[in-house]
Amino acid sequence: MATIAVVGAGSWGTALSMVLADNGHKVRIWGNRAEQIQEMNEAHTNNRYLPGVRLPESITGYTSLQQALEGVQNILLVVPTKAYRDILREMRELVTHPVTLIHASKGIEPDTLKRISEMIEEEMPAPLVQDIVVLSGPSHAEEVALRQPTTVTSASKNMQAAEEVQDLFINQYFRVYTNPDIIGVELGGALKNIIALAAGMTAGLGFGDNAKAALMTRGLAEIARLGRKMGAHPLTFAGLTGMGDLIVTCTSVHSRNWRAGNMLGKGQSLDEVLSNMGMVVEGVRTTKAAHQLAQVLDVEMPITAALHGVLFDGADVKEAVDSLMGRVRTHEVEAVPDLL
Amino acid sequence: MATIAVVGAGSWGTALSMVLADNGHKVRIWGNRAEQIQEMNEAHTNNRYLPGVRLPESITGYTSLQQALEGVQNILLVVPTKAYRDILREMRELVTHPVTLIHASKGIEPDTLKRISEMIEEEMPAPLVQDIVVLSGPSHAEEVALRQPTTVTSASKNMQAAEEVQDLFINQYFRVYTNPDIIGVELGGALKNIIALAAGMTAGLGFGDNAKAALMTRGLAEIARLGRKMGAHPLTFAGLTGMGDLIVTCTSVHSRNWRAGNMLGKGQSLDEVLSNMGMVVEGVRTTKAAHQLAQVLDVEMPITAALHGVLFDGADVKEAVDSLMGRVRTHEVEAVPDLL
Repeated sequence: MATIAVVGAGSWGTALSMVLADNGHKVRIWGNRAEQIQEMNEAHTNNRYLPGVRLPESITGYTSLQQALEGVQNILLVVPTKAYRDILREMRELVTHPVTLIHASKGIEPDTLKRISEMIEEEMPAPLVQDIVVLSGPSHAEEVALRQPTTVTSASKNMQAAEEVQDLFINQYFRVYTNPDIIGVELGGALKNIIALAAGMTAGLGFGDNAKAALMTRGLAEIARLGRKMGAHPLTFAGLTGMGDLIVTCTSVHSRNWRAGNMLGKGQSLDEVLSNMGMVVEGVRTTKAAHQLAQVLDVEMPITAALHGVLFDGADVKEAVDSLMGRVRTHEVEAVPDLL
Repeated sequence: MATIAVVGAGSWGTALSMVLADNGHKVRIWGNRAEQIQEMNEAHTNNRYLPGVRLPESITGYTSLQQALEGVQNILLVVPTKAYRDILREMRELVTHPVTLIHASKGIEPDTLKRISEMIEEEMPAPLVQDIVVLSGPSHAEEVALRQPTTVTSASKNMQAAEEVQDLFINQYFRVYTNPDIIGVELGGALKNIIALAAGMTAGLGFGDNAKAALMTRGLAEIARLGRKMGAHPLTFAGLTGMGDLIVTCTSVHSRNWRAGNMLGKGQSLDEVLSNMGMVVEGVRTTKAAHQLAQVLDVEMPITAALHGVLFDGADVKEAVDSLMGRVRTHEVEAVPDLL
């Protein structure tokens, strides 16, 4: 059994720590709020993020990153995309030997347009990085914490590393597949949040399930179109980290991106929504990044463009959604070949 | 503006009649229950199937199939798969000139393993058939009747016929794409009902959204695997009539296949479920047909096989779902290339 450091004590970091603990590993979970770490160590709960859930005692909380990382071979990163560069710069001063860096975050950095594994490569000196592995898939933390059946994908350029991470996490309720397409897996997880925001928005405006299904279908085609230009395997988007994650994020009460979109659809401003959520809504920054990518790579992404208009250019929510819904021309053949 | 006969006065036949009426066409809708047709003509409602909805007055109900079909150029068929051969045998005695036969039903005939367009070809003499067109997509009748935005696909071997049908139906809230892949469009619409039954069953057993998303993703891969063997374009399954229809059927309160599966998951027998529903649950017969197809064509369809066991071989619901959820082997690479 291994000792694994988990950097990030939000709902997903905590739920993944529970999976590791259930598999017999010792988990050191790091967070920067002293009272939260104390609660995890003393009451064995993390009530802000996973209310009502009892944590296994083999999970120990740390506020010292140095202590959390000391001597471990595997580090799981689960912080908001925005926090990656800062935390990696801290980590590179503390890590003393080559480690496997697993990440389970979903975003793209605006302006640099980097995926999270690319940020890791940029910030961590190569001699300290044994492998980079992405863990992604349709997985609400709240359900994993209840040990509900869940399937995810472990992706790496090095399939042996992907399999080692699979071995760490796999158990009866947490099923792990491997996939060599790290680009497709990272993009699917990040970009689906854009479609979830848009789906929430259409629901907030009063549109029904027929419209939602159309939006999700066209959304996945638009994600795959961008992914293909970026070197992903298009069929990764038909898998767990593409279609699967899109479904869970667009149709579940747990999704914060969907909920944020829903509030926007009901007329709240972006500032109001973000302050009401109290948790990071990755899809907002991802929309900015994806819109920039679409322009740089010359890819048609109408849903992303419409959402970008609403979030950042003051476009009217109802007009944006109406134009999306009405934009089919007469005699337009269904555009599914875009997936190839 | 045309006069169109609609054969079948259930919820979907009635909702599609409303779309046609909204577009200025005269609609003759046929049903075999005299009191229902009288209600449609006098009160302009169809309260058993679309409670609370008022029908346009340009929809006229008929109990005489002969009168409904007389002189029309386009006939829309919306009856249960089970009723097709009988109704087609009646129709061929009444049709006197070549007509376009549009169908909006979703099923496969057990034992013969025929799609609906193949049953039409077999039963209607060729000189009476100008074209066969399929109308399918993510579309709950209840939402279409409320003029909620909806997208569907019009498919035919003859793209000109598909476009003519597109012209009949398209309007501001009902968006119609065309697609030449009639095999893929028919299979997607029919087979998604199997996955909806299975999704309802897992929910009935208490599984959550993570499990549902995994089931739907693997379900679509299994549908595409069969479709490819049957000559469909695999990417049709990533479009409106595949992924789109799967989403709407597995995640919406309106879906009767999902509801039937849910009751099975909660422990009701198939007989109890069917008598409680009071409407046709196409997925039950389709499961039988798809299971036969999988055997004949040697295609691996684990979800279909598990459901077939529950429906027809007395298998235990919980054991069937547990075996599906647990069947991932260690080191299994994600099987998305099956879509190609």
